[in-house]
Amino acid sequence: MGKNEGEENGFDPENHNQEEEEDKKKHLKEEELSVERIFENQEVPSWRKQLTVRAFVVSFVLSILFSFIVMKFNLTTGIIPSLNVSAGLLGFFFVNTWTKLLQKSGLLRQPFTRQENTVIQTCVVASSGISFSGGYGNYLFAMSERIAKQSTDTLDIKKLSLGWMIGFLFAVSFLGLFSVVPLRKIMIIDFKLTYPSGTATAHLINSFQTPQGAKLAKKQVRELGKFFTISFLWGFFQWFYTAGENCGFANFPSLGLKAYDSKFYFDFSTTYVGVGMICPHIINISLLVGGILSWGLMWPLIGDRKGDWYPADLSSDSFSGLQGYKVFIAIALILGDGLYNFLKVLSQTIVGLSHQLRYKDASSGLPVADHSSLVSSRLSYDDKRRTQLFLKDQIPTLFAVGGYVAIAAIAMAILPHIFHQLKWYHILVIYIFAPTLAFCNAYGCGLTDWSLGSTYGKLSIFIIGAWAGASHGGVLAGLAACGVMMNIVSTASDLMQDFKTGYLTLASPRSMFVSQIIGTAMGCVISPCVFWLFYKAFDDLGQPGSQYPTPYAVVYRNMALLGVKGFSSLPKNCLLLCYVFFGGAIMINLIRDLVGKKWARFIPVPMAMAIPFYLGSYFAIDMCVGSLILFVWGKINKAKADALAPAVASGLICGDGIWTLPASIFALAGVKPPICMKFLSRGNNAKVDKFLGS
Amino acid sequence: MGKNEGEENGFDPENHNQEEEEDKKKHLKEEELSVERIFENQEVPSWRKQLTVRAFVVSFVLSILFSFIVMKFNLTTGIIPSLNVSAGLLGFFFVNTWTKLLQKSGLLRQPFTRQENTVIQTCVVASSGISFSGGYGNYLFAMSERIAKQSTDTLDIKKLSLGWMIGFLFAVSFLGLFSVVPLRKIMIIDFKLTYPSGTATAHLINSFQTPQGAKLAKKQVRELGKFFTISFLWGFFQWFYTAGENCGFANFPSLGLKAYDSKFYFDFSTTYVGVGMICPHIINISLLVGGILSWGLMWPLIGDRKGDWYPADLSSDSFSGLQGYKVFIAIALILGDGLYNFLKVLSQTIVGLSHQLRYKDASSGLPVADHSSLVSSRLSYDDKRRTQLFLKDQIPTLFAVGGYVAIAAIAMAILPHIFHQLKWYHILVIYIFAPTLAFCNAYGCGLTDWSLGSTYGKLSIFIIGAWAGASHGGVLAGLAACGVMMNIVSTASDLMQDFKTGYLTLASPRSMFVSQIIGTAMGCVISPCVFWLFYKAFDDLGQPGSQYPTPYAVVYRNMALLGVKGFSSLPKNCLLLCYVFFGGAIMINLIRDLVGKKWARFIPVPMAMAIPFYLGSYFAIDMCVGSLILFVWGKINKAKADALAPAVASGLICGDGIWTLPASIFALAGVKPPICMKFLSRGNNAKVDKFLGS
Repeated sequence: MGKNEGEENGFDPENHNQEEEEDKKKHLKEEELSVERIFENQEVPSWRKQLTVRAFVVSFVLSILFSFIVMKFNLTTGIIPSLNVSAGLLGFFFVNTWTKLLQKSGLLRQPFTRQENTVIQTCVVASSGISFSGGYGNYLFAMSERIAKQSTDTLDIKKLSLGWMIGFLFAVSFLGLFSVVPLRKIMIIDFKLTYPSGTATAHLINSFQTPQGAKLAKKQVRELGKFFTISFLWGFFQWFYTAGENCGFANFPSLGLKAYDSKFYFDFSTTYVGVGMICPHIINISLLVGGILSWGLMWPLIGDRKGDWYPADLSSDSFSGLQGYKVFIAIALILGDGLYNFLKVLSQTIVGLSHQLRYKDASSGLPVADHSSLVSSRLSYDDKRRTQLFLKDQIPTLFAVGGYVAIAAIAMAILPHIFHQLKWYHILVIYIFAPTLAFCNAYGCGLTDWSLGSTYGKLSIFIIGAWAGASHGGVLAGLAACGVMMNIVSTASDLMQDFKTGYLTLASPRSMFVSQIIGTAMGCVISPCVFWLFYKAFDDLGQPGSQYPTPYAVVYRNMALLGVKGFSSLPKNCLLLCYVFFGGAIMINLIRDLVGKKWARFIPVPMAMAIPFYLGSYFAIDMCVGSLILFVWGKINKAKADALAPAVASGLICGDGIWTLPASIFALAGVKPPICMKFLSRGNNAKVDKFLGS
Repeated sequence: MGKNEGEENGFDPENHNQEEEEDKKKHLKEEELSVERIFENQEVPSWRKQLTVRAFVVSFVLSILFSFIVMKFNLTTGIIPSLNVSAGLLGFFFVNTWTKLLQKSGLLRQPFTRQENTVIQTCVVASSGISFSGGYGNYLFAMSERIAKQSTDTLDIKKLSLGWMIGFLFAVSFLGLFSVVPLRKIMIIDFKLTYPSGTATAHLINSFQTPQGAKLAKKQVRELGKFFTISFLWGFFQWFYTAGENCGFANFPSLGLKAYDSKFYFDFSTTYVGVGMICPHIINISLLVGGILSWGLMWPLIGDRKGDWYPADLSSDSFSGLQGYKVFIAIALILGDGLYNFLKVLSQTIVGLSHQLRYKDASSGLPVADHSSLVSSRLSYDDKRRTQLFLKDQIPTLFAVGGYVAIAAIAMAILPHIFHQLKWYHILVIYIFAPTLAFCNAYGCGLTDWSLGSTYGKLSIFIIGAWAGASHGGVLAGLAACGVMMNIVSTASDLMQDFKTGYLTLASPRSMFVSQIIGTAMGCVISPCVFWLFYKAFDDLGQPGSQYPTPYAVVYRNMALLGVKGFSSLPKNCLLLCYVFFGGAIMINLIRDLVGKKWARFIPVPMAMAIPFYLGSYFAIDMCVGSLILFVWGKINKAKADALAPAVASGLICGDGIWTLPASIFALAGVKPPICMKFLSRGNNAKVDKFLGS
């Protein structure tokens, strides 16, 4: 039969040749587009060789540097920019100089590889991440007497001391690591999430380490360099106009003052334009839809019920008012989406596992089975090679689960000794639910680049605070629970970003895991010490109006005070709306799965929709601009856009990211921007002109 | 000998073929780049046919529209944007609709050509130009009692009335026309000056009228359209942020507040970026050098002598203070450069004329002789064709000179009857020097796109005012002289811009001349009537703080009051500096001519240097940005830059130009921008925040 068919079709040598040539062309084209083919001749060192002494020395130095920077942000505005990119770049710079010097002196034993670079980057991120999740600007400092005095009570306080802070961090910080390990494959290989910052960092590292001669790579490196420079200079230029609050391009009411008040504006952030170019279109649209639904529709409508649904005389950031709706509805939506996806993955895993067990195909473990179905011929060379290396050095799931349980047990034993108000069963409950929430946060971060660690922390304040009750020191229990939760959830998203970087640079997951453990240990010592330095050096630390007002510390304490009153303290209909949105998120996901891929790509993702609920739409608009640029570029020249867009986007993200470094140094050194670009309504402007004239 | 050489070289058929092919390629390439080849098959109508009734009907309607717009600017800020582009575009729009309607009804006798379009444009510019040079916002209104009351005296006043204003305008407005005619060939064909606005308008008209099918033209039209849209939308966007003085992008201290105070900043004007792309690099550099020399060096140094060289208690715009240095040194520089070039042209003309007379070559007049030497083979097809048509319909020099003398005689007879203080010999002197100054202004405008008509007017206020003396009504004589001078000098530059447009669109100079005469006549009636309407409708016209404060009227009156005191009223060393710069301008020109073309292009042009002396460097920076863009573009892709840069530049200029139309309508309708983008120093910002907070 087969032969007959062949004869029927005949043999056309011309056609054959043509096909061959097309194949050749295709191959060539793929080769041109492939990053890993460029690196093909470079041997990937074994995971042990990726962990060098010099890498950890550099990491240690950078960790201290970044801890200072993050601490500064903690204590001034409370908003921390992502430092992934800076870590990658500075790591390269240091080790590159080091190896070049050694090379000249003839002492170099091992060349500097991109895997080693990734190891440094992940170590620094793990370490400096603790400067944020340690809560020096929020939950931890909120326990102190200084902050309690500014609030209404001074009962539930805990005297700060370096000893218990380090102990606390060691007890809670490593758990995130172990919860991340089993999620790794799901997020990066199965879901193929983008993790824009991680991807950008990887592009940067790859471009630095590109061997000479590759044509497309050269083009990509050039584009990356060009947009890196533009983005950096733009950040620098913007800086000059940011003297004072609400100044500068980041507060440009580009859609009018009314829209600005509802946080609809393009804030000229090259970072988020780049992120928008990496994220799928539907994510960007989802963000915008979420923003319109919340800030455009719901908040104004709820705002109209002021005095009815909630007291009219509340401050704007009270959780008994509009702010309560914002945070809790967002959490409900995120939890609904996260839970649905968590259960989906869990059920698929169980089905797959039982299937394997039934057919006794025990030779290949589940992960490999998963993986073999993916490494099919339809994958590109890059994907194949990356997946292969990403799955080569396994960290056994049993090890991860065992580690998680062991550390949780240790934490349950230690933490009640530090905070008497926090009972072992509180911690047990947190650690039972934490992996789900870590999954939610890592998943959301992979989609949108936003980590919402502090949002989950707030949730813990409420739940544990209410559970412990006001009479049993619920305020302190809530704040401590916030710390426990935030550490695990933030770590999950931060390290998943790093794993994405590792995936794209062929770093071994095992070496990264070791690096993360070392980084976390460094962070547990470095960050409390840095905080202690600030705390002792500035007596007015935490006082409003001072140089370091730590604005979020009071906010967190107030939340805890509210939390101990239980859910009854939430404004009217808030819980009802939460249920509706929780159910809605599950419904939308169900519909997305049922209608098939063709239609699913037009249905917004609830996880993404939730983020602007709380933050506003300004970054969603940036990201939609990025989407639009990519869309138009694709229409004009599809091939070029496909080949160069990631490089351009990475350049935009990295340039702005690196700018945070000199900006932070300026801030630390007390160099202040000279000009304020202010936006006033016509009426206010006339008043101001009169005021300045007189 | 010749033949020998030929034989020695031999004959190489291959080489020949190659040459032929290259020739062909060159020809093809030229054809692609040539605008006029695209229009080759379109017959250029005779000059009489370019003057249609419909053109003048449309011109009349547009003249009224533009007179209102210009008058509005006159009476509010006193700063008039260039409306050339709008006139060209609206002319096209009206006549095109008209002809399309007629075509449908079958009544169309004559198709709409680009020459007719240019005729409309020049007529509207001539007419609406009088709304500015009529002095309703400065010298004319400064004669009135209303303004005199605001000044220190109320002696030398003239009651405004519609009758004498129309008479005055008819007496002085036509002279500019006749002085332009003989300069036409020198400026456009011999000097090849750019006249950026005129060039941009011509590109716009050409692009509208481009026949279908030309590939490069399509590309050019697309680029023009793209940048037109960008520029227009940018203008629109900027508008929203201009509530109040010193607001918006036009006041963006992009180089810091200190530099902004010295008028060094990029003001985001797409117009001047476009102008910079059309002007030669050396002009843009000259502007910047002039700006640095004056605002960066001289004014601060002179400012330090405050209290010594001039009284410290003067207002900042007093001509006895720093402002005096600025205006008079700029005039000295311009006069030095202008006089040098005027004498150079004059001597060349005399030499050429005597040469012709000696050899009795009377058959071809001087202009043709000039022209024949230019239309050599090294000129492009476009240049050849344009020069040919530009010189076809001659306006005899004798007619121009005769007309000038006749009108001057009439003016000398009429004007002393209107202003008793102005004697016939004052007017005679003005009219003797006017052509030189008209030459200066038209030349400077061709180089830099800036018309400095009001600067020459100020010069007349001083000279004639001082001559007449305070006791003989020197104030009124000075103001009237200002009007006489301004009319001739402004007309010279405005109409030369139009002639450049005409040159590039193959419009006949003769039809344009007729159109300008008709337009001027229209303007002499329309603009006083429009002013009268405003004057009668708004009783507080001219009062400071009112809706129409006419700020320059008081300034001009004060200048006249100062002028009657003679040169002694100028601050210390001002005259000395004027002499130095006058001499310097002549020296630089001499050097430019002596060192040869190779080095001359690195020596700045004094005429261009002078303009920022008075205005500041902001537009020079815009223009240098344009130069830089063109330079970088040329480095990347020379062929593309050469072919598309004029279209891009024209798009930038025209888009912004057209935006002035809706902006003016908004202003007339009282629609005000909602937001002020303000720039405050850090200190001021803190104060303002405190003020707004309380």
